Parts: sequence; structure tokens; C-alpha cells
Amino acid sequence: MKAEIIAVGTEILLGDIVNTDAQVISLGLDELGIDVYYQTVVGDNPERLRAVLDIARERSDLIITTGGLGPTLDDLTRETIADAFGKELVLHQPSLRRITAFFDRIGREMTPNNIKQAMLPAGCTVLPNDWGTAPGCAFEADGVHVLMLPGPPRECTPMFRTAGMAYLARLAGGVIVSHNIHIFGMGESQMEDQLHDLMEAGRNPTLAPYAKDGECLVRVTAKAESAEKAEQLLAPAVQQVCDRLGDVVYGVDVGSLEQAAARELTARGLTLSVAESCTGGLLSKRITDVAGASKFYKGGACTYCNEIKRKILGVSKETLDRYTAVSVQTAEEMARGIAQVYGTDIGIGITGYAGPDGGEDGTPVGTIHIGICFQGKAQVRTICSPRGRENARRDAANHALDMILRAAKKGANG
Amino acid sequence: MKAEIIAVGTEILLGDIVNTDAQVISLGLDELGIDVYYQTVVGDNPERLRAVLDIARERSDLIITTGGLGPTLDDLTRETIADAFGKELVLHQPSLRRITAFFDRIGREMTPNNIKQAMLPAGCTVLPNDWGTAPGCAFEADGVHVLMLPGPPRECTPMFRTAGMAYLARLAGGVIVSHNIHIFGMGESQMEDQLHDLMEAGRNPTLAPYAKDGECLVRVTAKAESAEKAEQLLAPAVQQVCDRLGDVVYGVDVGSLEQAAARELTARGLTLSVAESCTGGLLSKRITDVAGASKFYKGGACTYCNEIKRKILGVSKETLDRYTAVSVQTAEEMARGIAQVYGTDIGIGITGYAGPDGGEDGTPVGTIHIGICFQGKAQVRTICSPRGRENARRDAANHALDMILRAAKKGANG
Repeated sequence: MKAEIIAVGTEILLGDIVNTDAQVISLGLDELGIDVYYQTVVGDNPERLRAVLDIARERSDLIITTGGLGPTLDDLTRETIADAFGKELVLHQPSLRRITAFFDRIGREMTPNNIKQAMLPAGCTVLPNDWGTAPGCAFEADGVHVLMLPGPPRECTPMFRTAGMAYLARLAGGVIVSHNIHIFGMGESQMEDQLHDLMEAGRNPTLAPYAKDGECLVRVTAKAESAEKAEQLLAPAVQQVCDRLGDVVYGVDVGSLEQAAARELTARGLTLSVAESCTGGLLSKRITDVAGASKFYKGGACTYCNEIKRKILGVSKETLDRYTAVSVQTAEEMARGIAQVYGTDIGIGITGYAGPDGGEDGTPVGTIHIGICFQGKAQVRTICSPRGRENARRDAANHALDMILRAAKKGANG
Repeated sequence: MKAEIIAVGTEILLGDIVNTDAQVISLGLDELGIDVYYQTVVGDNPERLRAVLDIARERSDLIITTGGLGPTLDDLTRETIADAFGKELVLHQPSLRRITAFFDRIGREMTPNNIKQAMLPAGCTVLPNDWGTAPGCAFEADGVHVLMLPGPPRECTPMFRTAGMAYLARLAGGVIVSHNIHIFGMGESQMEDQLHDLMEAGRNPTLAPYAKDGECLVRVTAKAESAEKAEQLLAPAVQQVCDRLGDVVYGVDVGSLEQAAARELTARGLTLSVAESCTGGLLSKRITDVAGASKFYKGGACTYCNEIKRKILGVSKETLDRYTAVSVQTAEEMARGIAQVYGTDIGIGITGYAGPDGGEDGTPVGTIHIGICFQGKAQVRTICSPRGRENARRDAANHALDMILRAAKKGANG
């Protein structure tokens, strides 16, 4: 099946927004084994949209449009597509009730122009919108499958990943289910190398690797006639990937390192504080990105000069003089110091050269020491991340979260 | 002039990356007054690329391609375009020398397949690549202008914004120059309202408003026969915008709030420390995003519980009991406390309900107090940012940076 994604929106052509919908849909179609041959963007102009549709129906079997389903005069996707495929638009009562209820819920009056959002091609499959007003829909005409989705990513993404992908899976007679395996401490190429045979082996389940923000993810997706059967296909595949990769897997469907760490610390009733030099507050910021962090996080200190490292954390003058502020010894004393001062089970100390420069003593840029003190015992991990200040700081925070997560898990096992 | 942007790259169709090049180019063309009618993405496949080019030359006057200029077998944009427009590819010696020099500089051996990157359509204008190996180029054929740019954004963006936009400006007989006016403390719609007549008034200079990350930007762009003449056109327009908007303008071409604050503090020899509760380290992180922050920044404290607010910052038990941790009084004491403990000219204290919940006493979610203590005098700004935890935290950090910048500027004037 050859797919084409058509975004309808002048705001994309003006550069006001980037076409992330196309990326989300492309990723999902890849999981389903459907090839995307074209992505097209056209403005809110019925003649040009019609011309683009005429090109698409000649070269593609599946057309997915995003945008132009709203209530304003500019929103013409529904009308133009219905016309192009000879479909009549009819009022879909359940959608109108959903739209009315949506306005009730947000406490705003519904203006009459919203009614047109419930006008859908006769005989289509309706894709309900739980995240906004305009429903999506799907139909088949002249041997071409057409899906219409709303443009705003907060509506388009969940609608596509639930109802949209389910519709496409049903075309092949089934449902689809995915699990995300989260990996830290192994590069993407090494991971792909280790999973190569599994990735090549088959299309159901599929294994799709992703690398982002210094960590990796494998998404395992199965199609089956029921969710239960899909899970049966998934379970051994997920287990196989976890066994193969070993302890670099930090969780399945856990979101992120900070979310996994937060969950573990909360569950085990452990408290945390962090002392940061080169990361400058980034680790503390990421920990507190998680709502509910106050359950385990007492706080942190950004100690950006020696004077404050000594005053707040009690790092000794001797250590700073003898080993410098960027040293294993200083990282350890920072971790011990913050745990003691803030009175927490776990303390973290991070110090390094994030860039643009390394140390005057020849320590290379990107050298960062991360100390952890857990119930009195300290250890330090040293990393080298020389690809720029932002990456170095991110990598240091990732490693610190990984150390927190491992300490919390291990602590419970004795 | 009707423009079409064609991205060549299977990695976009797979969803591995999002087509940010199209956004960058669309924004630039809008500044030049050129309308973008279509954005298209096609894979690394010569037949489909050729078909897409044939459609584009019929409906557009300007075709800008991105991607497919590299050294591998997959990179076929150059050959396919040359063929489509009946152009011969010839070796461009200066480009070959640049490519050879590039490999020398990064200390890697140049493989022979890199030579094909210097094969360019006969008679084209070469767009040199200072950020990678593949040069871009531009030519006119059959009444259509064609620009080819490399795909990687770190190469495409600067090449387009310098040589690419200069080429397009020269088509109209001139050069183009832009200035960015940075605005904080006024919403986009209010800003557009105030500048409406100036934005409508003419195409040279153009005024383009942008809103991002809680602040606004007006980019003023002029076309002229020389850079000097462009600056002459720009100067009164920039002045007019600054006068019109008043003191919400925090700088021209200054990058960001944190960069502007860093420059001001460094220039005036003032030191800074910050105490954060709900922002959890975000402000400290943003301050230390700026390389060289150690010149003025001594550090911060994330005080995520009352116990630590008292212990580290000396916030009084009475204040916490009487006014709660989220109060004007606590913010002020946090600011005073951090300035005193860390020994800095300026201290910041931030406390609030970032979300998901508000206070048990009925304080609405999004209420955040930001205290500043500058050379012993304190004041507090209270904001309400109810659109989610991430936005609330970002807005609080923005306001804190704005307060730091204003204090630093005012301090110098007495």
C-alpha cells in the first residue's frame, strides 16, 4: 500500500509551524508496514487542495489529510474531499452531540458555525475526537482509502494513534498494540547491531529503534485480531529484547529516566537531593518536571563556584586545592555534602567541564564526574561527552538519573 | 512569484526526522515577500523525484530542494534535477578544493565518492558550504528558478539564510539584512495590534512577528542594493518599533532573555544567585546555558520543601506558618536569603503552584511569586500562568530573567 500524507494549512507554508503531524503519521504507518511515498503541504485554498488531491489519488492507495476540519470559513478540507470523491456530506448526530457536550464542558457557548464540523461524508467511519471538536473520518472510494484528521497536534496525534491506526489495522483485519522498551547506556548503532536479526526477522511484531536525547527506545508493535492476541505476540518479543540487551533496559512503558526514577523512589520511600556544578540546575529541573516530585525530592544546590561548594556542601579546601573542583574527590564530597545537609537517603554531586572549554590542567572538555551517596556509601562515575555544552549537560543528567534508578532498585534488594 | 519547497529524503517519509528545513525556508521566503504554495517530501528515488519536479515546474516559478546532495549512491538530487532541466553536470574546481580542505581540517581522509559533490549544473551560481561538504547551487531554466540546498539543518539553515536569501534578493536586484527586536511582557496579539499599521504599510522593510516560549520577536528585514542602504532603511523602522512598544523591548539582536541578562550583569560586574521552589532548577539551568555564566553567577538553591527553605535560606517559621510557602512574603525572604547566604548583589526567590494542582487554601494553579533582592532592596512580582506545569515554570523563569535585566540596567543608572 502506497500512502501519501497531505497537510492542509497556510500556517505551515508561512513557516509559523512545522509539520510534526506528518512525522507522527509516518512513524505510525511504518509500524503498520505501510510505505509513505509522499508528504505534501498545501494552503487553505480549495482549488489547490483539489489539484493536490487529484495528483494523490493517481499515485497513492491511501491518502491521509491533516487540518482544515475546523469551524471557520478557511476550513475547507471536508467539503473539497467530499466533492473530489463524489461523496455527499450528511449531519452526523452523535458528533454534533459530542461537539455540544465539549462546549458545555469548557463552559463556552457554541456558535452555529461549529455545526459544520459534524457534517461528514455519507457512509464514512467516524473517528471520534476526545481532544477537541472536529471529528475525523475514513472512507474508501474508487479503490483509494482516505483518512481525514484534525490539524492541531494535540488532537491529530492521539486520534491517529488510537482510532486512525486501529482503522488501518482493521483494513488488514485486526488491532495493533505497542510497547516501548527504554534503554540507557548503549548507543543506537550497538543496539541495532545486537537486535539486527530480530528486526529483520518479521513484520509481526515489528521492532522499531529510536534514539533521542542521549537514550534509546525500541518500540515493539503487533497486529492481531484482538488486543489479547496482540499481547500474546508481544510478550515473547519484549522479553527477548530485554534478555538480549540486559541491564541497559531501564523499563518498559516507563516514559523517561526521570519518570522511572521518580516512580522507584516514591515506591520505596527514599528521599533525594542533588548538588550541581556544570549541569547548573538541569538535573533538578528534570526531576521536578515530574508532577509529584515533592514526595521524594527535598531540593538541590547549584554550586557554581568553589566558595559556595565549601559553604553550602562542606567540600574541603584541601580537596579543592589538591584535586581541583573538577575531580572524582570533589564529586564525592558534593554528593556526601548535599545528602547530609538536606538530610536525604540519596545525594548526587555533579562537577565537570561542560564546555566550551576544558580544564587549565589539560582535563579535556566534556569530562564530568557524577557522585552518588546512598545511605552513607559513595561512588563516582566519570563520563566524557565532548559534543558540545548542551549535550554534555544532558548526558551528565541522564547518567545521574540512571545512577539514582539503579541505587533505588538495588537498595530494595538488599 | 510562486514557490515550492521539495525535500528529498526517505528519512523524513519514515518519520525519523521532521521537515524543519521547510519551515526555515518558508519563514525566509515570507520575509522576502515570496509566497510558498506547496511543500513536498519525496524519497531518495529518482523516478518519483523526477515526477515531483515535473509537477512543480508546471505550477511554480521557484523550486527550492533540500537534501540528496551528499556523496552516497542514494544522493540523486543533483543528477535528477540536471536531467530534468537539460543541464550538464561539470566539475566545479573551487568546490572540490573546499571539500578537500574540509576533510583536511577534520583530519579524515576524503573518499573518492566525495568528488561527485563538486559536480554542478553548468552555468549555475554556486552557494558555498561553510558548514559541511556539499555545495548548494542556483540556476534559471525555462522560466523557473531552481535552488538546491543540502538536507542537514545545520548546513541548510545557514546556507539558505546567507547565500540562498542573498541570491533570491539579487533576483530582485539587491541584498537583504534583518534585525531582531526582542520583546517580553506583551502578548503576540497585543503586539500585532500595536504594530498593525507598520506591518501593513509596506514590503520594504517588512515586519514579521513571532511568538515563542512565552516571549515575542519582531524581525525587521530590508532589501536594498547594498548592505549599507539596507541598514539605512532598517534604522528608522527598528527605532519606530522600539518607540511604539516602549520598555517591553529588551534588546535588538540580543539572542534571548538569559543572554541579555548575562551580558548586562557581566558588563556591570554584578553577581547573582537564585532560590527556586516550583521552577525546581529551571532558572538556574537557563542562566548556566550561557557559556561564561561563572563570571557573574555564584549558584542557586532548589528548596523544594519548607524544611530546606528554612535551613538553607533562613525563611522564618512565622512567615511559612502565617502566609504559607506560596506567598509574597516567602518569595521575598527567599530572595533576601539567597543573596545573603551566597553573598551576591542580586538574589531571586521563586515560589508558586506550577501545577497540576493549586493550593489547598484555594490559591489558583499557576500562581507564582517572584522576589528580587537587589543591594538590600526587595520587591515581588506575582504572575498567573494557568496553562500547564511546563508553561507555568517557563513563564516564571522568563519573568525572573526580565526582573534581573531591569534591575541590572536600572542599577547602573543610579
